[in-house]
Amino acid sequence: MKYGETLLRVRYAETDQMGVVYHAAYFNWMEVGRTEYFRQLGMPYSEIEKSELFLPVTKAYCHYKAPARYDDLIRISTTIASLQDVRLAFKYEIFRANSNELLASGETEHAFVNRKGKPVVLKKNNPFLWRRILEATGEKTE
Amino acid sequence: MKYGETLLRVRYAETDQMGVVYHAAYFNWMEVGRTEYFRQLGMPYSEIEKSELFLPVTKAYCHYKAPARYDDLIRISTTIASLQDVRLAFKYEIFRANSNELLASGETEHAFVNRKGKPVVLKKNNPFLWRRILEATGEKTE
Amino acid sequence: MKYGETLLRVRYAETDQMGVVYHAAYFNWMEVGRTEYFRQLGMPYSEIEKSELFLPVTKAYCHYKAPARYDDLIRISTTIASLQDVRLAFKYEIFRANSNELLASGETEHAFVNRKGKPVVLKKNNPFLWRRILEATGEKTE
Amino acid sequence: MKYGETLLRVRYAETDQMGVVYHAAYFNWMEVGRTEYFRQLGMPYSEIEKSELFLPVTKAYCHYKAPARYDDLIRISTTIASLQDVRLAFKYEIFRANSNELLASGETEHAFVNRKGKPVVLKKNNPFLWRRILEATGEKTE
Repeated sequence: MKYGETLLRVRYAETDQMGVVYHAAYFNWMEVGRTEYFRQLGMPYSEIEKSELFLPVTKAYCHYKAPARYDDLIRISTTIASLQDVRLAFKYEIFRANSNELLASGETEHAFVNRKGKPVVLKKNNPFLWRRILEATGEKTE
Repeated sequence: MKYGETLLRVRYAETDQMGVVYHAAYFNWMEVGRTEYFRQLGMPYSEIEKSELFLPVTKAYCHYKAPARYDDLIRISTTIASLQDVRLAFKYEIFRANSNELLASGETEHAFVNRKGKPVVLKKNNPFLWRRILEATGEKTE
Repeated sequence: MKYGETLLRVRYAETDQMGVVYHAAYFNWMEVGRTEYFRQLGMPYSEIEKSELFLPVTKAYCHYKAPARYDDLIRISTTIASLQDVRLAFKYEIFRANSNELLASGETEHAFVNRKGKPVVLKKNNPFLWRRILEATGEKTE
Repeated sequence: MKYGETLLRVRYAETDQMGVVYHAAYFNWMEVGRTEYFRQLGMPYSEIEKSELFLPVTKAYCHYKAPARYDDLIRISTTIASLQDVRLAFKYEIFRANSNELLASGETEHAFVNRKGKPVVLKKNNPFLWRRILEATGEKTE
């Protein structure tokens, strides 16, 4: 699998009575995509929180194109959309893995905050993560 | 309560380890808002589906402003954002009921489709619902 | 409504592709029943946690008799099944409110623990809650 | 991995404000275990439903021993507990994969029904599945 990609299986719990996946489940999948993105970056999100840095979602968006179904193998492609001093945005594309059909695309924006919810500047708070994100997105770090 | 408003209690199940409500839960609440909106309109969504009309979500968006917490009483204000031949959009404002603090605002867009997922024109498929929505949004039905 | 009772509406999110409510959702409803039980007892669970007492679930059981459906009004009847020094059990009956049909019955067992997960004796840790539960269950507190 | 085993990662969405996985999520995991069990048996559950056979949950039980946490790798071991003409029961053991610590054990019972919810006899309705289950559980098929 390529950088920023992860696979999951649609759960029965994620379907609704329309016979397809309930729309809110896609936001759970984007979270799975982010989790794997941070792991591949060398800084699992569980470690980020242990360092007292939190990334609550400030905006979330999804555009649904075709329905996912129970037991479908889903491929999530996660990339950084933008990085700023106190916020970060991810972009996601969600595919049916076998057919490579694009089912949905989405975006989430996150703030960098401490345990009390106060904004923090990533570059100062966690320079390693800042540098790794810049490297991953191909930007120069100075 | 005013037209288009509904109340709910935050469930423990809806919280996450950040100690606040998980962001995807707000999309479930918007669905609760829509369900009550259709009921107040005189056409419960369960009846809409029995008439073989379905309104799958095609776009969903949420902007988070302040965290909801376990056991908070939540007030959801739901309005129609736009109505077109084959689609409908809702706007939502989500408040902490006691303090009247705005926690989030959101929007969902829905297609009108039949059981097979084919688009249908609401005015022809369900003229009663079409008229009721126009009346609710204050537009003339001619 | 009677003591220990609460109402809720089935959400679309809670249905699955069988066209009925997904079985795990009933455990969320039992949690709603417990939350309202503690509130009626005079000690909301949110207050219990603020006092550094936690009641994690140690066992959970549900027996499903008839399916709940989208938009059904559900009535949950919650009672204390047993109280011991370091644990508490609840019983639940879940009805379709309009028809009074019993849809499911369940039980959950909870430990009394502190923030670190260590067992605590309720009578010492929170004598008010201990007494209120005994009173509610009709036992003498001597 | 051994027969009847499957792995998953704990999602952030599955945690609650106690900082551990919400108890109802384990029932979703048992469903993942069952889904993989049927696939390994040679008859994916999605195929079973396409043949108009459904296995709604009639009883569900879980005993929680230690908390699962965000990003833990979870191993689910699924076995058939019993097979009867019109019902089937599964047993599950849920482990933290790295430490091999048993986090929970559970059981679900399922009825064999048709689309209308009427009980059907598995041996007649789906002799292949009946035989495969008997073989998997090591019983003679006649």
